[in-house]
Amino acid sequence: MSAPSHPDVRSDVAALRRYRLPLFPDPVVPFGDVVGAAPPPLVPTGAAAVDPDPVGAVQRVLGDLDGRGRELGAVEVLLADEALAAAEESARRLAAGAARPLEGVPFGVKDVVQVEGSPTTFGSRRYAGFRPATTAQAVRNLRAAGAVLVAKLATYEFASGPNSRTRNPWDPGRRSGGSSSGPAAAVGAGLLPLAVGTDTGGSIRVPAAWCGAVGLKPTLGRVPRAGIPPLTWTMDHTGPLASSVALAGAALTAMAGASATTAMAGRPASAAGDAPLAGLRVGVLGGWFRVASDEVLALVDAAAKVLAGLGATLVPVDLPVIEEIDPDAIKRILVAAETASLHDAGDDLDGYGAVFAQLLTGGRSLSAVDYLHALRCRTVLAGAVDALFADVDLLACATSAIVAPPEGVDAVPLGGRDRVLATVVARNTSVFNVSGHPALTVPCGRAPGTGLPVGLQLVAPCWREDVCLGAGIAYQEVAG
Amino acid sequence: MSAPSHPDVRSDVAALRRYRLPLFPDPVVPFGDVVGAAPPPLVPTGAAAVDPDPVGAVQRVLGDLDGRGRELGAVEVLLADEALAAAEESARRLAAGAARPLEGVPFGVKDVVQVEGSPTTFGSRRYAGFRPATTAQAVRNLRAAGAVLVAKLATYEFASGPNSRTRNPWDPGRRSGGSSSGPAAAVGAGLLPLAVGTDTGGSIRVPAAWCGAVGLKPTLGRVPRAGIPPLTWTMDHTGPLASSVALAGAALTAMAGASATTAMAGRPASAAGDAPLAGLRVGVLGGWFRVASDEVLALVDAAAKVLAGLGATLVPVDLPVIEEIDPDAIKRILVAAETASLHDAGDDLDGYGAVFAQLLTGGRSLSAVDYLHALRCRTVLAGAVDALFADVDLLACATSAIVAPPEGVDAVPLGGRDRVLATVVARNTSVFNVSGHPALTVPCGRAPGTGLPVGLQLVAPCWREDVCLGAGIAYQEVAG
Repeated sequence: MSAPSHPDVRSDVAALRRYRLPLFPDPVVPFGDVVGAAPPPLVPTGAAAVDPDPVGAVQRVLGDLDGRGRELGAVEVLLADEALAAAEESARRLAAGAARPLEGVPFGVKDVVQVEGSPTTFGSRRYAGFRPATTAQAVRNLRAAGAVLVAKLATYEFASGPNSRTRNPWDPGRRSGGSSSGPAAAVGAGLLPLAVGTDTGGSIRVPAAWCGAVGLKPTLGRVPRAGIPPLTWTMDHTGPLASSVALAGAALTAMAGASATTAMAGRPASAAGDAPLAGLRVGVLGGWFRVASDEVLALVDAAAKVLAGLGATLVPVDLPVIEEIDPDAIKRILVAAETASLHDAGDDLDGYGAVFAQLLTGGRSLSAVDYLHALRCRTVLAGAVDALFADVDLLACATSAIVAPPEGVDAVPLGGRDRVLATVVARNTSVFNVSGHPALTVPCGRAPGTGLPVGLQLVAPCWREDVCLGAGIAYQEVAG
Repeated sequence: MSAPSHPDVRSDVAALRRYRLPLFPDPVVPFGDVVGAAPPPLVPTGAAAVDPDPVGAVQRVLGDLDGRGRELGAVEVLLADEALAAAEESARRLAAGAARPLEGVPFGVKDVVQVEGSPTTFGSRRYAGFRPATTAQAVRNLRAAGAVLVAKLATYEFASGPNSRTRNPWDPGRRSGGSSSGPAAAVGAGLLPLAVGTDTGGSIRVPAAWCGAVGLKPTLGRVPRAGIPPLTWTMDHTGPLASSVALAGAALTAMAGASATTAMAGRPASAAGDAPLAGLRVGVLGGWFRVASDEVLALVDAAAKVLAGLGATLVPVDLPVIEEIDPDAIKRILVAAETASLHDAGDDLDGYGAVFAQLLTGGRSLSAVDYLHALRCRTVLAGAVDALFADVDLLACATSAIVAPPEGVDAVPLGGRDRVLATVVARNTSVFNVSGHPALTVPCGRAPGTGLPVGLQLVAPCWREDVCLGAGIAYQEVAG
């Protein structure tokens, strides 16, 4: 009898490597998009404030982006002709009483989002002048709901970090955050009501918080990612940045391809006469999530009191395993490995920026076991986050541990010691990319002295975006 | 302005490696089990032939397994006491007219399936004498449906290959296939009506075909895998081996935790008076799937004619991309990498068999980019398989390209040249592990001369086990 033998796995690798994979795969998720069950239904939450004169509104937005938007370094390219044509169509529909849910609402997209025929650089010199042949599904869905695309907005190479070109609208010497910096600066400055961003570790929520915008990272898998090249397909999310939670909710409904015909008032159900958030149990995250600056913690605590005033019950909760499993480490390993796989062009690093090239080199150095260890640590951490929702309906913490730092600063004092800025920025956000839970950032005031905005992060159970959106709408109704 | 910088990914790896992961993770799928949507509902198909005397039936099965079963090398351990107690309970329920769908049906499980308190070796010397503290969910579900566990059955170390201990019941000099060899030999020999197997590249279907049993690999994700340590969590499936398609269907319903109260007749819907398979379009796979021995092809073609006689329309279909993307290479890479991650005990290979140790060493040599390339090739191939179902309801081909080969043979002539046996065995099965589609093997006759069984493989769209089961039931009604 012969022993069963396994053919040499290195020869399998060589054989399979002969098959060239596309750089921008679509669908982006290995396997999940083929067999994956459809996401549970979305409970539509929120509504857009539709301008009765969409042509005027789009003209105003185009003018503002061309002036202040370019000054902030938020704009990649304006799409004036097609925006005005779409606005005229919106005007006709409004006149005919046939308005769609986002009729005439101007929006921009982060420049990693492909739009057919429009320049799309992915923030990379390597793709200067590239004009895609496809339009991202999320953009098609927003347009189908009546929204008007007006601009591509600035980002960093393949959404892999913050760009230092985009200024913070509240202080031009401060960072705007990354990588949805253009969308956050434009929406935070009030130039644009709505933008599409992507979020792998906090790239919608951190810039939104630093620039004073609302930002939503939906449940992983809620919004289609087709037409948006991945940074890391296991943790990328597409979602809205908006001027209000209500608009973010309406945009989510459209982006997800859900129907808004049964749109709700946008609050968790409560009996008539009850306080708006009566019965809602809000878990206030401690430990790891309290390693934040005093000014941030004071505003987050005040916001939690507002939720309590609306009828919510505040419950202290903790996630001790996060001290052992750093979500940012998971994120960096998955990003490095998956990006190295996507940009798998041998030794050719020409045209990539130095930071992105360093990312690729790091990714190529990882073993399969390194990668899989991180993926499996993710399961443990995600399970621990999910378990918190056995006791609460919503989690609350600061979106970012700090306000927007000055450009040029690479370390900040926090929790009694100096920390590398890159390990602080996404401290409270990347854990929910790891876990997949929907997470909303809502502006909750400005820091004394600097006047810089601070964001409150509200996190809901998977597929229950309506819970964080509903609480955010109720909060904005009283907190303004 | 400072450039944004990525912390060194090697230091992230070192930090995360300090977190020790469990050897037998549960849930086994990184991420998917946390956010993943629930599988679509199962259409119950099939029914068990319940013996009016379950105690007698269980005694008979225990006797047969103890005699012929041990002679075949199919038995790991008999669970006589608990089986007889369960059979008595079944007898009481039958007498009370309160029978469950599988009341008193004896079943065995492959020895990678954990049963609380019973020895479970996973086919590995390293786990000799191990008694788990948990029972696999699929076993709990079968027991809840009234089935009676009678034995743990032979397998190869962690289901990683064929064992040469288990004999083929039709010719003791022939292989029984792997790795569900014990279940296939026992069911194929008529010693046992039902067994639980696992299938990563064909490990239910190939031994079932070679030993003359029915075997079903359900849709990936249909049957819970909790309590069954993975070989590769991305492609492992748990499913039934059975003496008939009808019983396999009833067992699937139970294993999946679905309800059988609305059990259907087990055929695709057709108008009254129509032929049983009227309107069913069956795609007969060509090209790659016709590289098989003449005797196998002749029996598969005859079986397809039977389906046509039942009213099905036969349509030739092809999957050309499989010539470029070898599903077996994908499988070997994913198995090597994921197994190396699971058994990640540094250089400690003590107690593992030589073949399994070679698998671990190969897995440790893989880079993250090697692994991810295979995972992404999988998406391409899976998408191509799924696209075939735009034109047909079912795919048909040989389960294995050859009948059970003699022990000691490592190469076989096929398609005009000698091929390494390990690349031939799962040639037609591993593609559906890669794609996740449900695949059934049904005995379709015996090869002239040797009298060895041949299996017809019927593959349905994801989540539509009822389609392949319904066709298999109709086939067995006429073909016997």
